[in-house]
Amino acid sequence: MSHIGVYPGSFDPFTVGHMDVLLHAVSLFETVQVGVLRNSAKSPVFTTEERVTMIERVIEAEKLSSVRVASFDGLLVDYAASIGAKYIIRGLRAITDFEYEFQIAALNRRLNRDICTVYFMASPEHSFLSSSAVREIGAMGGSIEGLVPPSIEKTIAERLTNQ
Amino acid sequence: MSHIGVYPGSFDPFTVGHMDVLLHAVSLFETVQVGVLRNSAKSPVFTTEERVTMIERVIEAEKLSSVRVASFDGLLVDYAASIGAKYIIRGLRAITDFEYEFQIAALNRRLNRDICTVYFMASPEHSFLSSSAVREIGAMGGSIEGLVPPSIEKTIAERLTNQ
Amino acid sequence: MSHIGVYPGSFDPFTVGHMDVLLHAVSLFETVQVGVLRNSAKSPVFTTEERVTMIERVIEAEKLSSVRVASFDGLLVDYAASIGAKYIIRGLRAITDFEYEFQIAALNRRLNRDICTVYFMASPEHSFLSSSAVREIGAMGGSIEGLVPPSIEKTIAERLTNQ
Amino acid sequence: MSHIGVYPGSFDPFTVGHMDVLLHAVSLFETVQVGVLRNSAKSPVFTTEERVTMIERVIEAEKLSSVRVASFDGLLVDYAASIGAKYIIRGLRAITDFEYEFQIAALNRRLNRDICTVYFMASPEHSFLSSSAVREIGAMGGSIEGLVPPSIEKTIAERLTNQ
Amino acid sequence: MSHIGVYPGSFDPFTVGHMDVLLHAVSLFETVQVGVLRNSAKSPVFTTEERVTMIERVIEAEKLSSVRVASFDGLLVDYAASIGAKYIIRGLRAITDFEYEFQIAALNRRLNRDICTVYFMASPEHSFLSSSAVREIGAMGGSIEGLVPPSIEKTIAERLTNQ
Amino acid sequence: MSHIGVYPGSFDPFTVGHMDVLLHAVSLFETVQVGVLRNSAKSPVFTTEERVTMIERVIEAEKLSSVRVASFDGLLVDYAASIGAKYIIRGLRAITDFEYEFQIAALNRRLNRDICTVYFMASPEHSFLSSSAVREIGAMGGSIEGLVPPSIEKTIAERLTNQ
Repeated sequence: MSHIGVYPGSFDPFTVGHMDVLLHAVSLFETVQVGVLRNSAKSPVFTTEERVTMIERVIEAEKLSSVRVASFDGLLVDYAASIGAKYIIRGLRAITDFEYEFQIAALNRRLNRDICTVYFMASPEHSFLSSSAVREIGAMGGSIEGLVPPSIEKTIAERLTNQ
Repeated sequence: MSHIGVYPGSFDPFTVGHMDVLLHAVSLFETVQVGVLRNSAKSPVFTTEERVTMIERVIEAEKLSSVRVASFDGLLVDYAASIGAKYIIRGLRAITDFEYEFQIAALNRRLNRDICTVYFMASPEHSFLSSSAVREIGAMGGSIEGLVPPSIEKTIAERLTNQ
Repeated sequence: MSHIGVYPGSFDPFTVGHMDVLLHAVSLFETVQVGVLRNSAKSPVFTTEERVTMIERVIEAEKLSSVRVASFDGLLVDYAASIGAKYIIRGLRAITDFEYEFQIAALNRRLNRDICTVYFMASPEHSFLSSSAVREIGAMGGSIEGLVPPSIEKTIAERLTNQ
Repeated sequence: MSHIGVYPGSFDPFTVGHMDVLLHAVSLFETVQVGVLRNSAKSPVFTTEERVTMIERVIEAEKLSSVRVASFDGLLVDYAASIGAKYIIRGLRAITDFEYEFQIAALNRRLNRDICTVYFMASPEHSFLSSSAVREIGAMGGSIEGLVPPSIEKTIAERLTNQ
Repeated sequence: MSHIGVYPGSFDPFTVGHMDVLLHAVSLFETVQVGVLRNSAKSPVFTTEERVTMIERVIEAEKLSSVRVASFDGLLVDYAASIGAKYIIRGLRAITDFEYEFQIAALNRRLNRDICTVYFMASPEHSFLSSSAVREIGAMGGSIEGLVPPSIEKTIAERLTNQ
Repeated sequence: MSHIGVYPGSFDPFTVGHMDVLLHAVSLFETVQVGVLRNSAKSPVFTTEERVTMIERVIEAEKLSSVRVASFDGLLVDYAASIGAKYIIRGLRAITDFEYEFQIAALNRRLNRDICTVYFMASPEHSFLSSSAVREIGAMGGSIEGLVPPSIEKTIAERLTNQ
């Protein structure tokens, strides 16, 4: 039985909260594919390439040999099916996350009943964290230490300051 | 890699919502141990034995060869560790579930960092369902068809009527 | 077209928040039947008879000629059908109300698809009010003026003090 | 007693969730006026004319003889008053809906105390559905069958693909 | 012991809900500094100068001798520290407020552990009120009487009409 | 200006989450009176005397010279007024807390407009913690280290084991 899970997101940028979820997923799935959402309507601060590259650096720094990263667009369930993944991986952090995830899960199940979504809960000390908080603090010159993985902290801080 | 997951609960009684979660778990884990909470303070309507027996009947009727059932008491993380399970399986249905599960997950992680909780979202058509709703409808003589697995529907209906 | 609506509840005791909902219902339905839940598991402070009598007094004092009151037990949808009501009337006050009502509405629809639930939102100045708050304040000797209809305030206050 | 209800919204586009609410309203009100919000700040994907035309087609296909549709702008309570409607009709689907609707209801009541808002709860199988979900799935080429009324499904799908 | 509190916000425009919180803060702190967020990404309707001037007028009209107002940008905790304030003052109105405030409080505590956030709950009759509701009603020509302090009502109404 | 704040609760038992709130309150108020609710309907595990004594021990161990503790019953606002306190101190941890606190704040304001409630947010690492979680873990023989103040940990653990 070979399980592949897709961990999709904007990762604009990748935070220690995402790291949390990724580590849970690594322990459960044989292969975890991080899927960076390409042409999101949200106009990300970091380009798709920057986001993929940063996650590659985290994978290397943390020696996560079962994790791969790529960008994608289109329907998530189609992407999952195209790489043979039967599981979608998501983190839950807050009530508003929950409502949104409930809607997405129901839609995805409707679009492809063979694909199932698995959730991990954020640890309490990361429950307040989001990519947008990192972007805002970084842009105002605040320290983002401990909010993002050490291996990409400097890159993110510089990029946000010189925005 | 052999993954064992524990699916704990009161199951007073087991519903199609629980079935939903169990089927997700079966597809992801090699072995799923349903753990029926023994001396719950909630004074269950069905005895521990009745609840275990009903789940055994469901397992047989649905031919879920990788599922086992037993009762337990004490700390859930200790029970999980004692049977070699590194995963706790839970379903999420509503906002109040979410808050409760967030608290339990954080406590369990604190008690044993090696055990991780995995969540599946209830399907929308079961999002309104709970064991207490089944008990209440059954006790008032309403039909519980479609709310519990067919293999145990008659047993539950009779038991609730003659309470 | 003759519309009958049932407004079910414990009404232990009836508050100005219930009055709010009742007045909305009166403007929309030709007949409103207030249904006092008889053998609730909650062991009410006021007896079924006291609760029915108090609501009768409110109906008289407020000259609500299209409102009737009675007690009931069993399934709400059966009660509604038995009196020819196709509508259930409920008030919404808070998030936890919402979740509970969502579950009940889905179950009732399942039990009888001909009966539909209509909601009115509590007015902001009553959004904090509940029967249990009235009971608690009254029992501690606080003033319940403005929390319950004037016509039954004295009865409720005395009853709660001498509990 | 002749009751007119206004069912306001963006309907960008109209979904089976809206249909759900509309059918409830049709059973309760003698006349239901669907009010398509004209100059919404949200820059809708479908023009006001397209949205009105699609709802007209649904009304015809479903033979909803007591339903009319028109567009409007300005304050909703003024629009309701201008067509003699004393009821606003809204659907409730999720917690975030609830909070928003609570605020709007309180504001509308303040602006015009003669107009009352009536809510219907989404059925569980549509609780995950929203116009934005339909737009997103359609734009990515996913199937929107079952998410919108059959009579306008093709129009919506084509329009979203060629956006 | 001399306590200074900062009450930060967009105040676009200042409402009676803000007034509520400000009066609570005045009773608790020796000095309250209202901090108008300068270059908010939200592109406010009222300019920073207009917002500061309106709050100055409210302070004068209500004779709030311990309140000062100024605009600021950058990290809130840095601003607080720069004026010697050890307390941030915030109002809570709704569930979505709560989640947002929980996240902000945790981030601010992380950025500066010496600064603590104090919350006051909105009174029920203002729980539905927001600056955006005022803007929307004003822009559509509805009355904003009672939604904003009397001393700035006319200014706000005119400005929103001639937008 | 001499501010007294009352910090009321069941404290059954006192946890590090309560400690969090108490330390915030100590920095803001000249005197903080911890008020242990006497005849709560909840039938506490620890007697009133035990709870008062444990909090006295914490006060001494942490050298909180401005904190006093006593038990009380009756209306909280009456108790506050009787000791000259114009502020009630409460912690906020979760959405369900928020709703409950919103209702209590509105009722208390109604009962005595001179008394105002001040909230502090739980720190994320304690957001999962509650007295009932401590009781449950302790009763099952799990470690409560880090969940309650060190000075009373042994007392609580022994008491819960020998219940």
